[in-house]
Amino acid sequence: MNAVMAQSPLTNSTPSRPMTTVAGYLLTRLAEAGLASVFGVPGDYNLPILDAIAGRPELAWIGMATEQGAGYAADSYARLRGIGALVTTFGVGELSAINAIAGAYAESVPVVHIVGTPALTARDDGVVLHHNLPGGDYGHFARMAAEVTAAQADLRPDTAPEEIDRVLSIALRTSRPVYLTIPANVATASVPAPMGRLPQIGQDPDPAVLAAFAAHVRRVLGPADRVSVLVGHLAARRGVTDQVRDLAVAGNLPVAVVSAAKGDFPESDPRFAGLYAGPSSVKRARLAVEDADVLIMVGVTLADTVLGGAHRPPGTRRIDLGLQARIGDVTYPGVDLREALTALTEAVRPVPPRADLAGLPAWETSAASDGRDRKLTQASLWARVQDFLRPGDLLIADQGTAFYGAAELTLPDGAHLVGQPMWASIGWTLPGALGVSLAAPDRRVILVAGDGAMQQTAAELGSLLGQGLTPVVIVINNGGYTIERTIHRPDAGYHEIPAWDWTQWPAAVAPESSTVTLRASSSHGLALALNAASHHADTGRPVLIEAVLGASDVPPLLQDLTQALAASGQ
Amino acid sequence: MNAVMAQSPLTNSTPSRPMTTVAGYLLTRLAEAGLASVFGVPGDYNLPILDAIAGRPELAWIGMATEQGAGYAADSYARLRGIGALVTTFGVGELSAINAIAGAYAESVPVVHIVGTPALTARDDGVVLHHNLPGGDYGHFARMAAEVTAAQADLRPDTAPEEIDRVLSIALRTSRPVYLTIPANVATASVPAPMGRLPQIGQDPDPAVLAAFAAHVRRVLGPADRVSVLVGHLAARRGVTDQVRDLAVAGNLPVAVVSAAKGDFPESDPRFAGLYAGPSSVKRARLAVEDADVLIMVGVTLADTVLGGAHRPPGTRRIDLGLQARIGDVTYPGVDLREALTALTEAVRPVPPRADLAGLPAWETSAASDGRDRKLTQASLWARVQDFLRPGDLLIADQGTAFYGAAELTLPDGAHLVGQPMWASIGWTLPGALGVSLAAPDRRVILVAGDGAMQQTAAELGSLLGQGLTPVVIVINNGGYTIERTIHRPDAGYHEIPAWDWTQWPAAVAPESSTVTLRASSSHGLALALNAASHHADTGRPVLIEAVLGASDVPPLLQDLTQALAASGQ
Repeated sequence: MNAVMAQSPLTNSTPSRPMTTVAGYLLTRLAEAGLASVFGVPGDYNLPILDAIAGRPELAWIGMATEQGAGYAADSYARLRGIGALVTTFGVGELSAINAIAGAYAESVPVVHIVGTPALTARDDGVVLHHNLPGGDYGHFARMAAEVTAAQADLRPDTAPEEIDRVLSIALRTSRPVYLTIPANVATASVPAPMGRLPQIGQDPDPAVLAAFAAHVRRVLGPADRVSVLVGHLAARRGVTDQVRDLAVAGNLPVAVVSAAKGDFPESDPRFAGLYAGPSSVKRARLAVEDADVLIMVGVTLADTVLGGAHRPPGTRRIDLGLQARIGDVTYPGVDLREALTALTEAVRPVPPRADLAGLPAWETSAASDGRDRKLTQASLWARVQDFLRPGDLLIADQGTAFYGAAELTLPDGAHLVGQPMWASIGWTLPGALGVSLAAPDRRVILVAGDGAMQQTAAELGSLLGQGLTPVVIVINNGGYTIERTIHRPDAGYHEIPAWDWTQWPAAVAPESSTVTLRASSSHGLALALNAASHHADTGRPVLIEAVLGASDVPPLLQDLTQALAASGQ
Repeated sequence: MNAVMAQSPLTNSTPSRPMTTVAGYLLTRLAEAGLASVFGVPGDYNLPILDAIAGRPELAWIGMATEQGAGYAADSYARLRGIGALVTTFGVGELSAINAIAGAYAESVPVVHIVGTPALTARDDGVVLHHNLPGGDYGHFARMAAEVTAAQADLRPDTAPEEIDRVLSIALRTSRPVYLTIPANVATASVPAPMGRLPQIGQDPDPAVLAAFAAHVRRVLGPADRVSVLVGHLAARRGVTDQVRDLAVAGNLPVAVVSAAKGDFPESDPRFAGLYAGPSSVKRARLAVEDADVLIMVGVTLADTVLGGAHRPPGTRRIDLGLQARIGDVTYPGVDLREALTALTEAVRPVPPRADLAGLPAWETSAASDGRDRKLTQASLWARVQDFLRPGDLLIADQGTAFYGAAELTLPDGAHLVGQPMWASIGWTLPGALGVSLAAPDRRVILVAGDGAMQQTAAELGSLLGQGLTPVVIVINNGGYTIERTIHRPDAGYHEIPAWDWTQWPAAVAPESSTVTLRASSSHGLALALNAASHHADTGRPVLIEAVLGASDVPPLLQDLTQALAASGQ
């Protein structure tokens, strides 16, 4: 019996509670949370779960070449849809994905990792089951997962409904990944179908705590003339970017963003103060953030790659909003971003624009078109990409020159930069482009990644194009790990990688995709290639551009950041 | 100062002890243990370690596309050389490799996982360093590693020499992977250079225990007429395959092997009893193993994929040799394979050949050439591979139809099958082929893997060919995960993978390698392709053959094994 029947009064004519399976219960809850695509790789222990997915028309199974790719895709999907999921198999599969799960933890993304494990009836201390370590201990991998997930459960029929609800609620409440193991014989076991909605834990803060927070906010904001906002990655994850806009309007406040939140405040808004990156910031952003009476940080994680090494904005008069709110040293547990922003918007009073910010630009971009036939440089690459961008674009850029070049662009309205600057696992963006393409099928997706990053997850181009998606893919071919060259001994041989012919890559991994491949080694060549890409992407053909750049050419922001990291002792 | 100087009396003119760095100490010990290639991926936290490697002419740095590939290559390298090593970076890098490390644990391979971590001076609870989780805890990944390694150390200058010696000794003594973290500022810290050889812990068993074992052996073997030997994976890892041969000769004993030890007993020896795989065994092997008075198991792990599900050989009169010896229920700690085999060889008395085994073949291969122009089948594929094999070949075959087809072949003298049947992580063999090629540069390497497995680690073909190596690569293109089809619902859509054009793959990932690519969809076509491969491999050109097979065609051994697995409750 299928869980869907529980929602149909026609089939619920008997007084007995409708039944489903353990896997069915989980899938019903995931679909309820907004999930429509499940990523993963088959393995014999998870096939009963895949059967359950195949029986759900509302859920698409997206088979990936690798479990790591599945994890990355689920992560990027969840950033746009509020929930992501992958299915792997015990041991080999789940461990191949565990870096992706750790990344979701570091970057606050609610990804549900579902692992099919050996049937309880097959476990036998005398025989090692494949994908397990010798010794009869079936808990090794769950203990590893517990280090990088917010909640875990090993499902059993008698408690599966409560455990699934508990674990999914924690994922949604904390914006963190969670881990569910389902033994092969448990997946098909019968359990009562969900009756109501998924319970939301801890969603309503204690009114007294909220009142105390509001009072504290009024005391802090009252005498302050210079109040600024700094937006971090958690604002978009918690769905409060509109509230940030409301707060900015109510107080006429300058708003800077960190790179992890690029695009989460409209850059055409006159209150936009630019990208804050510690000492590497544009002057307008640095003044707004560091020369304020009160700084309101909305979902910002103080991470070295975001803030320029060990640098951090002044903390004396700081209102720090996250899963709980903090003013100075006082914490207000349970006051999540939503309630905190409401209280702030009610308390703030409009002030005149700050004179010291007047006339300062929100961008000091290094992007520059440098004539028609010049050798392609980072400066001219980003100038061309800037020209190419349209409102609503999803620009997904890999850690390295790609992300930091993209962070300096001016984003059109509704466009966003998607990246992973804190966990910073290179190769994240190719499967990530698949995830965001499925999560937002109406938006144009532009993927920019370096060659070292692309090689990490290269097989997933086949997965991406195999879904019939039409991203614009730009490979920065600069002969290896340029970001590492910036940090240490640029001429060392270990920075080099095998030279690929990127224009031949789609023919190998997606021969039926009719991908247009182009190579550009001049600024003008890239302009022509992007012009062609614009046309083809609109007519439903994927485009891959190999952009040939110098091995030591880096965007200024990256240069600044890596110098700051080096200076801070790494 | 370099550790090499410690060995030069000319530079050791002062009475003070020669000094090296922490990284230098480790590299000296690794080279002493037989290491000549270090696999890995650069990351900013490990660059000081890579600098130390670059300064060692006796060590080659083998940069890989992925950390998982580095782990797989280090594993396969260690199987032939007795030690392997990879270098990754904190968090993102080490977690991408952790499935490979777990596989080395499951399959008893001494791999040293060296991880560069943030400088101690850069750690700061208030700022999240990239590649770490928020919260200021730098121990998450070490705790994960502890689940899948035999020893761990986080190096500090004052204890690094002792800790390195301790951890490496455990790796060598237990044939298990170990884990070493080196903070970026510790890698270059000065420590005394190694003075003597690496201490070998626990190598000499208690003479009283050994004497008791020998006495027990004599009591057990005395009345036994039918004594057989079953060889497992640990025999080759511990370097005792010659001793197994001596034992077999001394007692005129029939010797069967499990698939994990295929090639570890010469198949031309009249005592060879064939492949033991539980109910799926050839009759000769099953009689030898299960119808003996005493069964001597040499380094066998009772694993479902090796022994056919929950089946196991009769245990009543069993001498079980591994890191310690066991007879029936009595354990002899510290009696390792080497001493145990010596005692057995002294105790055994020659017996006449068993009449029940006379005339039974050691192979019941399904390999069959089926005419010139027939569609390629598993049967004809393996017949052609059989014809292609030469003495001394290293045949590395991925879990799936490849491994179980290869396990049924007759191996020429000195040829070995390399695979990962217990951990069974698909994709292991492509980086594995790089590892064995570097470990045994004089041997011909033949890699056979299915398309699903190849997609898992496909980028590493660039790493393999980029080293100038010339393996023969056979891709079994059968449209997806045929091994899973054998287990469950063969027509389910989730068994399918994106179709690649495998003949285009080398042009993308190794355009300068001049790889010969061929596609065969008939038995005769494969014969021609292998003929060409034989020629090109000898003249130094790599060869890739795409062998097109039916999606549900499987070797008989795999069919048997998966049915046994299904019957045992999975």
